[in-house]
Amino acid sequence: MSIVSIVSEPTTPQKVELTDEEIFAGHIGGKLSVETTTALDTQRALSIAYTPGVAQVSRAIAADETLADRYTWTSRLVVVVSDGSAVLGLGDIGPRASLPVMEGKSALFKNFAGLNSIPLVLDTKDPDEIVETLIRLRPSFGAVNLEDISAPRCFEIEKRVIEALDCPVMHDDQHGTAIVVLAALKGAVKVQDRDIHDLRVVISGAGAAGVACANILLAAGIADVTVLDSKGIVSADRQDLGEIKVDLAARTNPAGRRGGTAEALDGADVFLGVSAGTVPEELIATMAKDSIVFALSNPDPEIHPDIARKHAAIVATGRSDFPNQINNVLAFPGVFRGALDAGARRITEGMKLAAAEAILSVVGDELAVDKIVPSPLDPRVAPAVAEAVAAAARAEGVTD
Amino acid sequence: MSIVSIVSEPTTPQKVELTDEEIFAGHIGGKLSVETTTALDTQRALSIAYTPGVAQVSRAIAADETLADRYTWTSRLVVVVSDGSAVLGLGDIGPRASLPVMEGKSALFKNFAGLNSIPLVLDTKDPDEIVETLIRLRPSFGAVNLEDISAPRCFEIEKRVIEALDCPVMHDDQHGTAIVVLAALKGAVKVQDRDIHDLRVVISGAGAAGVACANILLAAGIADVTVLDSKGIVSADRQDLGEIKVDLAARTNPAGRRGGTAEALDGADVFLGVSAGTVPEELIATMAKDSIVFALSNPDPEIHPDIARKHAAIVATGRSDFPNQINNVLAFPGVFRGALDAGARRITEGMKLAAAEAILSVVGDELAVDKIVPSPLDPRVAPAVAEAVAAAARAEGVTD
Repeated sequence: MSIVSIVSEPTTPQKVELTDEEIFAGHIGGKLSVETTTALDTQRALSIAYTPGVAQVSRAIAADETLADRYTWTSRLVVVVSDGSAVLGLGDIGPRASLPVMEGKSALFKNFAGLNSIPLVLDTKDPDEIVETLIRLRPSFGAVNLEDISAPRCFEIEKRVIEALDCPVMHDDQHGTAIVVLAALKGAVKVQDRDIHDLRVVISGAGAAGVACANILLAAGIADVTVLDSKGIVSADRQDLGEIKVDLAARTNPAGRRGGTAEALDGADVFLGVSAGTVPEELIATMAKDSIVFALSNPDPEIHPDIARKHAAIVATGRSDFPNQINNVLAFPGVFRGALDAGARRITEGMKLAAAEAILSVVGDELAVDKIVPSPLDPRVAPAVAEAVAAAARAEGVTD
Repeated sequence: MSIVSIVSEPTTPQKVELTDEEIFAGHIGGKLSVETTTALDTQRALSIAYTPGVAQVSRAIAADETLADRYTWTSRLVVVVSDGSAVLGLGDIGPRASLPVMEGKSALFKNFAGLNSIPLVLDTKDPDEIVETLIRLRPSFGAVNLEDISAPRCFEIEKRVIEALDCPVMHDDQHGTAIVVLAALKGAVKVQDRDIHDLRVVISGAGAAGVACANILLAAGIADVTVLDSKGIVSADRQDLGEIKVDLAARTNPAGRRGGTAEALDGADVFLGVSAGTVPEELIATMAKDSIVFALSNPDPEIHPDIARKHAAIVATGRSDFPNQINNVLAFPGVFRGALDAGARRITEGMKLAAAEAILSVVGDELAVDKIVPSPLDPRVAPAVAEAVAAAARAEGVTD
């Protein structure tokens, strides 16, 4: 992609009308292809790439396993791993049906970050088996992008895979979303000339994205974060919470609010929707002056952006046909590229915060109420994120 | 590869002298790359390949899982699976060190058969775990090429993977070798105007290749096959044989010979070396008139072809710098391509025999004492093999 292609993009987001015919035609045979990096059309080329030449390389790696990083494709290879249990807005559709999404993800890795990526979809939902399978496959790849795994299993699986493997691992539905939300919120307060620390934030949804967003906003220094699940405010006095939400309740809702969306939103500065639910206009109207609404449910935002805009100062969605599209593709390609560039053994909170800053930095002078994040097609984003993430990894000493 | 490239190949095989520098330079970053089949440089292209368009395709596959064959890359994707326990002449060097070989294999699949292929190397040698891992990964691929797994585990693993998966599975060190050996032997007897059924064959080596060669030669109607392991002739009266060799002893050595290489080779028509051993010139000299010697150990044949040629009428090796190179690349790309083209659920003995016939057919009028098989670089081979294998699969009814 060249800079020219952005200039030719419409400056006002427009709805792309797609027919079923073109969608299915675009998927025949899948969206990925494995190619060889050099032609194998002579006896010499074959003798280098295969027998007898390859034996020299295998012998060298056998003597020093770290050479696999240099002489195989693994150190630039991200596996996109899913069990198909929480796919887009489709839910638990299984591994085969999730494959087109995972192929798309792998395609985005190549397109935006120049990384090789392959989808591995698993015919098991058992956390033990998923973790075990990745441990067995460890010599085959350089990083793991966990994708579309349902909560709360996703938290346990990510934690255990991170502990088991000495390479970058990230569940994108959690941290990719959280990074871009933080970038967008930083953009919003910069437009408004406010201090992010003073915001009172309400997060609707306590699944993968909701929990990760709460964590990154707390890490960014926002003191007053309140999370809503389907039963209301996640608070310490509730008896129906699992382990993840008990932990969340201990670190959020500092004012000890009780009740539901109405009680949470009254006077709040930020509504962050990361559920498949809706929020009534009347409640958005009760938020504080200059409120910020991120209605990220896709394809149907929790509240239509035109309605939200009547009450809120800044509105963002996950959709490409409205301003301020909050899309994970702004984060994950650069995060993994930066981590692999630096030889990082894990992805830290500091690297995620650096990624958010880098996304915001690309907006630069164009920052405005209807441009708090860059376009997902902006080719400057991934390199900027990669550079910032790699620098953070080196600064934190998590590299080889 | 174009036909032009063959014409420009030297007609007399020549030794390719490689430096370590060019071998290692040819491996930096690995030999494979994942590419996208369409550019993702516009909002429209992204909307088709990823969200929201992709949801339509996932929804369709969720409703009918067979559509995954049409709308994902899996039905053209061969995974090259190894635990690195029996790599080339290097032995048990482990999964990381085996990766350059597996990448080379994947490259050959693309180069000769136009199939996508990725290497998956496993950090376990336990047959249960290897089989279980492939079962869990089943939705991710279309076929399995098992590679460089040591005997006798390779027999059990292949058998169990075939039983567990509804797709083509082949351990290439066994059957790829066997197919090309049969093709070469058919070529040799055609040159000599002999009947293959009358041959008395001695196979030196009872590992993966030796067992598979014995099986395919028996299936091709050769009645007198004798196998040698490191202790001598594999015969029914030996007390030191494992399950595989007990079975082999029951089906080979019909004359009940006892002893070692000397006793086996005396008056034999064919010596097939698939071990890392050597065979003395004096014993080759005791073979029958017009004897055939395939000394396939690589890089050092069991007997130097120039020495063997003093006594044998036809000599083949695994080396590219002598005539009659017996190389698996003549078989596996076309075998898997044909199996996948036909939608075969398994690879049968009939498909392997058809592959051997197809390899031989490509030699055509060029058949001669020093050309009993085509060049491994001949681009006509894989399509011919694929067509024959697909036809056999359809005839046997193992297709969808």
